[in-house]
Amino acid sequence: MSIEGDVRAVALRGREASFELALATRATKDDALLGMASALLASSDQVLAANADDVGRAEASGTPANIVDRLRLTPDRLDAMAQGLREVAGLPDPVGEVVRGSTLANGLELRQIRVPFGVVGMIYEARPNVTADAAGICLKAGNAVLLRGSSSARSSNTAIVQVLRDAAVEAGLPADVVQLVPGDSHESVKALMRARGLVDVLIPRGGAGLIRSVVEESTVPVIETGVGNCHVYVDAAADLDQALAIVLNAKTHRTSVCNAAESLLVHADLTQTFVPRVVEALTEAGVTVHGDAEFAAYDGVLPATDDDYAAEYLSLDISACVVDSVDDAIAHIRRFSSGHTEAIVTRDQATARRFVAAVDSAAVLVNASTRFTDGGEFGFGAEIGISTQKLHARGPMGLTEMTSTKYVVTGDGHVR
Amino acid sequence: MSIEGDVRAVALRGREASFELALATRATKDDALLGMASALLASSDQVLAANADDVGRAEASGTPANIVDRLRLTPDRLDAMAQGLREVAGLPDPVGEVVRGSTLANGLELRQIRVPFGVVGMIYEARPNVTADAAGICLKAGNAVLLRGSSSARSSNTAIVQVLRDAAVEAGLPADVVQLVPGDSHESVKALMRARGLVDVLIPRGGAGLIRSVVEESTVPVIETGVGNCHVYVDAAADLDQALAIVLNAKTHRTSVCNAAESLLVHADLTQTFVPRVVEALTEAGVTVHGDAEFAAYDGVLPATDDDYAAEYLSLDISACVVDSVDDAIAHIRRFSSGHTEAIVTRDQATARRFVAAVDSAAVLVNASTRFTDGGEFGFGAEIGISTQKLHARGPMGLTEMTSTKYVVTGDGHVR
Repeated sequence: MSIEGDVRAVALRGREASFELALATRATKDDALLGMASALLASSDQVLAANADDVGRAEASGTPANIVDRLRLTPDRLDAMAQGLREVAGLPDPVGEVVRGSTLANGLELRQIRVPFGVVGMIYEARPNVTADAAGICLKAGNAVLLRGSSSARSSNTAIVQVLRDAAVEAGLPADVVQLVPGDSHESVKALMRARGLVDVLIPRGGAGLIRSVVEESTVPVIETGVGNCHVYVDAAADLDQALAIVLNAKTHRTSVCNAAESLLVHADLTQTFVPRVVEALTEAGVTVHGDAEFAAYDGVLPATDDDYAAEYLSLDISACVVDSVDDAIAHIRRFSSGHTEAIVTRDQATARRFVAAVDSAAVLVNASTRFTDGGEFGFGAEIGISTQKLHARGPMGLTEMTSTKYVVTGDGHVR
Repeated sequence: MSIEGDVRAVALRGREASFELALATRATKDDALLGMASALLASSDQVLAANADDVGRAEASGTPANIVDRLRLTPDRLDAMAQGLREVAGLPDPVGEVVRGSTLANGLELRQIRVPFGVVGMIYEARPNVTADAAGICLKAGNAVLLRGSSSARSSNTAIVQVLRDAAVEAGLPADVVQLVPGDSHESVKALMRARGLVDVLIPRGGAGLIRSVVEESTVPVIETGVGNCHVYVDAAADLDQALAIVLNAKTHRTSVCNAAESLLVHADLTQTFVPRVVEALTEAGVTVHGDAEFAAYDGVLPATDDDYAAEYLSLDISACVVDSVDDAIAHIRRFSSGHTEAIVTRDQATARRFVAAVDSAAVLVNASTRFTDGGEFGFGAEIGISTQKLHARGPMGLTEMTSTKYVVTGDGHVR
């Protein structure tokens, strides 16, 4: 059978399993999640052995150390995966929530209720912990999941998925609520993207290239995630100590994440005061500043191009420029932002209101680090990614965002 | 300039206008809507003259009478368009609504608020009244709209859009909050579908062919609308008088609409009682029944194929079959439904619950006609279409569904 046929067969089994899962009670789903957590720990030897194969292959083929690190599982990381599944079990069930309801003038009762999507496809990169995280969140929201991880993690993912499937069956659910998508090539991703009618939603997690290719080629509806060219704007009325702390945190706390700051905008009034101070602090922290003429006047600052302002560095680099006003900052953000997260530092209420209203990003922060855009920080309990699109979900996605709704209308013979 | 360049230029102007519109107060938007209503009536001579050109061209080219009728504007239809705009002005502003909010453990204030999409593209067929309806709904939700109507209605649409733009300017908004997409060919639709980054959402309203082509080709996120292969299932425990009234209403009240019933499922216990009765009533009402062997035993019933069960007739035709149980009805619906609306007629509470839980459509009705799936009936005040997809909006879409959200997070120097 062709890869396309294989993928469609898997999707069809997921669809069948989703019918049963959609009707499962919270108790059954939580049993499955807790069982999965225990089984992962009980099977840690097999999972770690499978992971050692992947890591060995990656090292032998000269994979960079930071990628190998993401790929590597340890007893601690397995513990964290199990703990994640337990936490999802502890969250309320989104399915069945009444979103809105009323009795219409003719006596019909109208309720809009949360229901699972059905089948969710996840496309992601090397981290094998995503396999358990995504399966857990999808299961709790009543969705069968089709997992297409990186081929470099195939042994790990195969072992993890086998453990999760067995635990699902143990709890009385079909094994096919969790499946691995067959095939290592782009053909299998492509088949998943074209499985319209079998797959309800596709969530690509990864770099800009992966997301662009999914957006271009998919006929299945997509939730775009995670590309973050995040800005910090330091206003003329900023508390400069706060501003410095926020810029340093947003840039250096963790560089490889989508909510790290990639660009710094500073009001012209601060050219003589804050600019030298922030350049010095960033440089000391090991950050390379790519700046406009005002910034490039300082030692170690490289001249910035439009490519710098558009870049999601994911490294110890930041682009920087001076702007004449909050409106110029907004205009710069409109031009270069990926719509993920932008922050303003200001003590001026009117300026903060203007920035919040005019900046069209998933999250807009006032006097806080961009790093707070995160499902965990927002209190969602679990996060499957951060949507940077405007349709359906925007910003961190938790269990609620992994559901659709339907209208239930009840009458007694109504025709008018 | 190429058509693609023209369309992108229009989209870019829409995007610029959307920045201003997103910041407009409700008062300004309502002024514009009321001004548009008055202006449409004040300009009725020009609009009707432009429409007469379209109607004349359509008649001369041998367009079927029912299509010409959809195209035709009358003083009454203009009144209804103006009234629609006034009603939208009377609805609450969805923009700025706080969807969820909390204070996090670290003191950060989190609010998720409704914001406009930005730029909405509408692709629709002959009815020129959609031009004013869609513009009004988009404007109230803070979105600039790009209207791509049928080329057969171009003169009417051009006249209407000019009136709406002038009224927008009169109210202090940019004219480009309402624009017609240039070009009559598929090239201009295609350019709209590929204007990712300039257009935020595309809503095709029309037949299955249009919607399929948009889903296939668009890189702009799409909300799929309006294809309805709606079922009525008459259960063994149905009140047969109610069932008959509901079937007749759902099939014959208006045949050309997406919430009309296209398929009838009857429990096997009713083969000798309800089947002959409903066949007789449908036949008397001028409906052609395409049925299985049980139905085809009666005079005038044609044998049904799978194509019949899959068909959205939009005419005085209905497919029909006998099923052995509610689960068989559910299985039939899973196989053939377009996910729009399904109804069950039953007095049995457990059966109703089973049907409601297991049928995965935008609307599931109990003891009521499928015709109720409608934004007006649901009390939304205005409707821009009925979504049959699961992402973002499902079922009738009103003002709320024409918005996105963003997170606003406020701190005082928070980095942890």
